[in-house]
Amino acid sequence: MALKRFIATALPEIENELQTQIARLDHARLNLFHEMLTYHMGWTGAGAGAEATGKRIRPILVLLAVASCGADWQIGLPAAAAVELLHNFSLVHDDVQDNSDKRRNRSTVWKKWGVPMAINVGDALFVLANQAVLDLEKALPAATVARAASILNEACLDLTRGQYLDMSYEERFDLKIEDYWPMIGGKTSALLAACTQMGALIGGADEPTQQNYRQFGHHLGLAFQVQDDLLGIWGDEKITGKSAASDLTEGKNSLPVLFALEKNAEFAKRWRQGPIGAEEVGEIAAVLEREGARTFALEASQKETDKALGFLEQAQPAGAAGEALLELAKMLLKREQ
Amino acid sequence: MALKRFIATALPEIENELQTQIARLDHARLNLFHEMLTYHMGWTGAGAGAEATGKRIRPILVLLAVASCGADWQIGLPAAAAVELLHNFSLVHDDVQDNSDKRRNRSTVWKKWGVPMAINVGDALFVLANQAVLDLEKALPAATVARAASILNEACLDLTRGQYLDMSYEERFDLKIEDYWPMIGGKTSALLAACTQMGALIGGADEPTQQNYRQFGHHLGLAFQVQDDLLGIWGDEKITGKSAASDLTEGKNSLPVLFALEKNAEFAKRWRQGPIGAEEVGEIAAVLEREGARTFALEASQKETDKALGFLEQAQPAGAAGEALLELAKMLLKREQ
Repeated sequence: MALKRFIATALPEIENELQTQIARLDHARLNLFHEMLTYHMGWTGAGAGAEATGKRIRPILVLLAVASCGADWQIGLPAAAAVELLHNFSLVHDDVQDNSDKRRNRSTVWKKWGVPMAINVGDALFVLANQAVLDLEKALPAATVARAASILNEACLDLTRGQYLDMSYEERFDLKIEDYWPMIGGKTSALLAACTQMGALIGGADEPTQQNYRQFGHHLGLAFQVQDDLLGIWGDEKITGKSAASDLTEGKNSLPVLFALEKNAEFAKRWRQGPIGAEEVGEIAAVLEREGARTFALEASQKETDKALGFLEQAQPAGAAGEALLELAKMLLKREQ
Repeated sequence: MALKRFIATALPEIENELQTQIARLDHARLNLFHEMLTYHMGWTGAGAGAEATGKRIRPILVLLAVASCGADWQIGLPAAAAVELLHNFSLVHDDVQDNSDKRRNRSTVWKKWGVPMAINVGDALFVLANQAVLDLEKALPAATVARAASILNEACLDLTRGQYLDMSYEERFDLKIEDYWPMIGGKTSALLAACTQMGALIGGADEPTQQNYRQFGHHLGLAFQVQDDLLGIWGDEKITGKSAASDLTEGKNSLPVLFALEKNAEFAKRWRQGPIGAEEVGEIAAVLEREGARTFALEASQKETDKALGFLEQAQPAGAAGEALLELAKMLLKREQ
């Protein structure tokens, strides 16, 4: 309940802040450039609307962290916009790198306007993220702003590290479980860790509390990604919105897959023979499950969930925002229910 | 002489600072990723060396601006590294966007490692630029650091604006002279303006002086670009290192071309008929010259040069560094001699 109420209040202000940041590109000669960004953000063009914008989980995490440290969440809006812009930068470039035609049921930016333009749209979202975080200066001392910018940059660098690992793994068949965590740490966790840490920083928490918030976000990200991996193989199509086992046909190096590759039995043999067709996925998912990959991933997810909730407890988030943060964490970690 | 002496002292320290910044990616799992960056920077791989690194003009501009305001240039090293990293980010993405196989006689990053990796290499250089500028914190107050980061970000956003215009112009045949300046302002001038402004900020200059430095860099960039356009059509191949008139065969929307398109005479008619072959360039360059495009561009370059030198004079750069800055400006503006 606390979460629902918070989202209802904060979401319009998040959208408003995002629009203000992106309006930096709203000039006479740049109409189409600006439109490329507003299209990607889900505000304009075919299929625009709530389905297209995504849930803005990351800005909400920032603002709840701010508020649960006892500060006014509105001072965190520029940071909330920054993390969402950064997330969207990575999506636009990801779509080019993965050659993906669709995102949230709409054509991707590169599909609509070509690769060169899409690279530039991603770059612009990246710059806007950096500019947004500097807008914290309106309400906070320069030293805090510089610290927030530094946290954001570290997450950006982790994103590029994770992206590199992800791409370099595509050509490798000798991957092990230990190769999974640094990739996921960069691609998913780093930004969530930055969200909760920045929120605590902005909220005025002391350094140990900031670290507890950071660790909460980090393990939340890891648990979330493992859940995502599980849903990508054994998820209910009707609930996930993705076709079942699409991660297998796409050759994604998810945790269950790496577990089975390390095991080097029936699944590993088939995986090395080349792409898996849609007609085989049911059988291959069953092989994976027999080899213990599902159980292993479920346990890993549970372990990370426990760690995340442990750090959140140590952070002692206060008030209705604290409740809402716990609700959000639980919601993210039990997505199938 | 002052310039030569300064470069001899500062260049090794610039390279050292750049290597320190890029070493953030030097980890066990990331060897190849790190190598992609060191290759692009000209330090490793086939053809590595002074020819491959470029002249590091932008960092030298930053440091001379710092020193000519009376401060120790070494405090500006993180900012110097930042502008060079940012410049190189834009080169890596540019090469993908323009489908260029070669840069400084070496294979481009995308040509060696593919487009997805090159996008990520560019992104990483971009993040490293942002992190580098925050390292100013070691010697300067947080408010100055935040201001420097803001100047750098504004230049980044201008880069994406200029890049958008450049790409969008490729499909247009109705371009006018007035379309030239915003493109070049973004693609070339914005970063040079940021170099000189940041240098003055770091050097402790007051706000009006910072603005004089900024305007100096801005007009220096415009004059430099117009010179580059002239050399790209009428330059001496032996001196420029580019094949003569390559800008014409590549269809570049340079100032002489836009002048002639606006004139809408013989050149414009030929331009609209499609790509210009290597065998025609001599003749077409002569048409352009007859239509007054060369004279127009020479005058524009002279006008911007005068403005640049005027602002530099107003900025009152001091000492040997001030002399070196004037030398550098003159060198950049008379590249054929």
